[in-house]
Amino acid sequence: MLHGYTLPRTPGGTSSLVAAPPWHFAGDALAVAFEGDPASIASLLPAPLELDSPRCAVYFIEWQFATDGGEEFLDPSRSQYRETLFLVSARFEGLPVSYCPFIWVDQDISMVRGHLQGWPKQLGSTWISRSHALTSPASPVLGPGGRFGASLGVKDRRLAEALVTLREPSDALPTPGFARAVNVRYFPDLAGGGPLLHDLVQLRSRNVQVSQVWKGDAELALHAHPTLELSLLKPERVGFGYRFSMALTVDDLVVLKDLRDGVS
Amino acid sequence: MLHGYTLPRTPGGTSSLVAAPPWHFAGDALAVAFEGDPASIASLLPAPLELDSPRCAVYFIEWQFATDGGEEFLDPSRSQYRETLFLVSARFEGLPVSYCPFIWVDQDISMVRGHLQGWPKQLGSTWISRSHALTSPASPVLGPGGRFGASLGVKDRRLAEALVTLREPSDALPTPGFARAVNVRYFPDLAGGGPLLHDLVQLRSRNVQVSQVWKGDAELALHAHPTLELSLLKPERVGFGYRFSMALTVDDLVVLKDLRDGVS
Amino acid sequence: MLHGYTLPRTPGGTSSLVAAPPWHFAGDALAVAFEGDPASIASLLPAPLELDSPRCAVYFIEWQFATDGGEEFLDPSRSQYRETLFLVSARFEGLPVSYCPFIWVDQDISMVRGHLQGWPKQLGSTWISRSHALTSPASPVLGPGGRFGASLGVKDRRLAEALVTLREPSDALPTPGFARAVNVRYFPDLAGGGPLLHDLVQLRSRNVQVSQVWKGDAELALHAHPTLELSLLKPERVGFGYRFSMALTVDDLVVLKDLRDGVS
Amino acid sequence: MLHGYTLPRTPGGTSSLVAAPPWHFAGDALAVAFEGDPASIASLLPAPLELDSPRCAVYFIEWQFATDGGEEFLDPSRSQYRETLFLVSARFEGLPVSYCPFIWVDQDISMVRGHLQGWPKQLGSTWISRSHALTSPASPVLGPGGRFGASLGVKDRRLAEALVTLREPSDALPTPGFARAVNVRYFPDLAGGGPLLHDLVQLRSRNVQVSQVWKGDAELALHAHPTLELSLLKPERVGFGYRFSMALTVDDLVVLKDLRDGVS
Repeated sequence: MLHGYTLPRTPGGTSSLVAAPPWHFAGDALAVAFEGDPASIASLLPAPLELDSPRCAVYFIEWQFATDGGEEFLDPSRSQYRETLFLVSARFEGLPVSYCPFIWVDQDISMVRGHLQGWPKQLGSTWISRSHALTSPASPVLGPGGRFGASLGVKDRRLAEALVTLREPSDALPTPGFARAVNVRYFPDLAGGGPLLHDLVQLRSRNVQVSQVWKGDAELALHAHPTLELSLLKPERVGFGYRFSMALTVDDLVVLKDLRDGVS
Repeated sequence: MLHGYTLPRTPGGTSSLVAAPPWHFAGDALAVAFEGDPASIASLLPAPLELDSPRCAVYFIEWQFATDGGEEFLDPSRSQYRETLFLVSARFEGLPVSYCPFIWVDQDISMVRGHLQGWPKQLGSTWISRSHALTSPASPVLGPGGRFGASLGVKDRRLAEALVTLREPSDALPTPGFARAVNVRYFPDLAGGGPLLHDLVQLRSRNVQVSQVWKGDAELALHAHPTLELSLLKPERVGFGYRFSMALTVDDLVVLKDLRDGVS
Repeated sequence: MLHGYTLPRTPGGTSSLVAAPPWHFAGDALAVAFEGDPASIASLLPAPLELDSPRCAVYFIEWQFATDGGEEFLDPSRSQYRETLFLVSARFEGLPVSYCPFIWVDQDISMVRGHLQGWPKQLGSTWISRSHALTSPASPVLGPGGRFGASLGVKDRRLAEALVTLREPSDALPTPGFARAVNVRYFPDLAGGGPLLHDLVQLRSRNVQVSQVWKGDAELALHAHPTLELSLLKPERVGFGYRFSMALTVDDLVVLKDLRDGVS
Repeated sequence: MLHGYTLPRTPGGTSSLVAAPPWHFAGDALAVAFEGDPASIASLLPAPLELDSPRCAVYFIEWQFATDGGEEFLDPSRSQYRETLFLVSARFEGLPVSYCPFIWVDQDISMVRGHLQGWPKQLGSTWISRSHALTSPASPVLGPGGRFGASLGVKDRRLAEALVTLREPSDALPTPGFARAVNVRYFPDLAGGGPLLHDLVQLRSRNVQVSQVWKGDAELALHAHPTLELSLLKPERVGFGYRFSMALTVDDLVVLKDLRDGVS
């Protein structure tokens, strides 16, 4: 009898790349809100999602994860990962949602756990400035004047760079945000024919906590790539930058619509 | 309209982690045949596979891949990867097949392309001695007396080490081999209930070419790991070691059996 | 005219691997104090250092660095690095000092900057649990009951693992500490003869700041390696574990003794 | 008594990052000859080297190394590394030499072994197409029409990309070549004052072997970087590309001139 939430499935069930949910996450984020070209953003949306606005956001996050009682963070090579993701503003059946066209992480566990939720994760290298709890020219202050940078690299090419100078506390998180994120699960069939799995899903998270949010000025640069169409999100106007911590739990998903041909 | 063989799907279709098949592969392999404990090996087999023999093999391979006309090898960070995989000897409906309980690669493209074929790929670090085409104390000879090593590491833990001393040409490849490999495709449903996809599939490859095969003495060590149950394959007897190159094309798959509960 | 603090030296001087001091550092540390075998520890000391006690400490640290006005942390791939180092208790001319037989970092900049100070740095992979500022099963609390892990891996082999459960605030840092660390600078001469540089140096740091220190129970395991003689530090008794942040500035060094043959 | 060719020096002497010479190397190279701006190239030369011509070459190499009887290639994570280096055409006391302003490798052992010879090595990521010994769309042929690519990335930024299409065998290697390479050894003194070591050295290699050399058309792109002054080597004219294997032994060095102030 084989056990395990994903492959490889084994007698003990401890070899699976992804352990069974719930998955608890805690992380520190640097984010930048921006606006792109509406037609380009709309071109990235899977039907039946429609463009809501040209508002986008990029998040650079250092995460730590654990399952119930798993304490994976005690062997942090199995728990920590860094992530860069882009969210755009969409509408599903008239209601505003966010949609993620691109996301990169630096660990296999996170990558496949993401695929199960429809996150289109690839491997990439994310770096984010840290604020250590001491006064030093090596550590930006988590407060007015604190300067933070972040970068994304994919297979030795730098794709994104952000710079944020904190100015003041903020009551609000950047938008679009994670709260109503909609993804697409997709599994093509090498045996031929259409995909075995192709549906629109909405993420559900609980136990959501957010720290004090700091807000400030921001710069954002996205660089061209020979195959990754990230330039469809080229910023036309850059908004505020944000720094905050958050925690949440994921163990559910709502299927919004089967997208396979001939499936109503 | 979104295009792409896998996520992320985009207007141009060039952003997908995995490009559409056919996928052409060429690689250099170091392999060691061995026998493990029959009951332990059997415990790794998904029903209805049955144990055929205690014969196993581990392959360490440096691959390069391309799609039709894609010439991905010209940007080798997108084409090259290293792999370690274990094959065991099973039987499906009375016929001998091979089954892969564990496999590791070092690139996301290869990892997800594997998942689409049921390979239970995780990220791992493989190193293999190379024979350069010159006489040097730094380069083993590809012939009698040539000594080759290989290792597998997973998240900073070394899991496997092999050592092969070539003795003579061989007419045969190690067994179990890739020819009739059977995998399990598996996609759990975070929305609840059983897996969305759970079937037994048989790989099909074509254009298979193999170089001259060299054979010799071998040593193999597998190390304990806190969660990965690789020690179920602990060698009880180590057979020959092999060195060879191979090339093949993959663009098809045969579904042998749906393994979901209640599906006949 | 070429400029730069280290190679490569160039017209603009910005290409050097290491920028000119002062070097400012801020970091979060997990440390474990322990005692080893006195004779084994003594065997690691360069003359004229003598053993002071069997007390040792291992530090796992996530660092961020900057030069004066350089703000390297805004491009954190050039500023952040992780480090594992061991300190032992020695005596120089009757005064207690600490000595570092082994240290690993994960960035070239830090590695060579260390060599200039006599730190025997090699590349290694360090992971340390983080406490995010929110309550989550994914984040240990920085206070009583908080559990933290750390690991060191070198070329796919895991060398060290630590586990600390915080119990109470501490007025003291672990010992041996960084305050009076003594290193050896060493540069062999490929042209033949003895080393071009071989001296005993004492580090000087300033602007030293330390956060609240938390102390608790600890476990520590060091694993055997085919060439790295870390097992000379095998713990015979494991003391307290510590968690704290620190910041300091380095821009000076004191030469204690030239160790080349025939130099008095 | 401590032993070891470099730090860390230990009782057994096996922990040193770099083992004592002789060092044997075998590797596969892709190279592109090109011409840059004479004044820019000259600005990179350390006095008393003078510009000989605007001829430059970039080499991308996959190396394997071993010491006498060390067989390091049997644990290839300690033996294999990839390298990108640039050579320019200089003159020392009227004789033509080559000089390396920039070089990147991906292993600590190689990096420090290079520093001992004056190579200004930094960590970087090199990828090179391979020709496997079989006919496949995934493997370029090592002969007329074979197309090979290579790239260099440094901390998530791509710095160089080359493309070579082989046309014919060549009797000659690209120039400038390794044969008379001149480097600068340099060790700054953190205790203050000028460098402890600053001299011009000429490499000596023996047992040099070269395989059949293939030559063809080439493209080369160097990309701008915020601090690395590689654009001083911007190609004004790109010459032939080359593919070959080579092996050599290094265990000596000739000091040409002490470059410290006040040292004649």
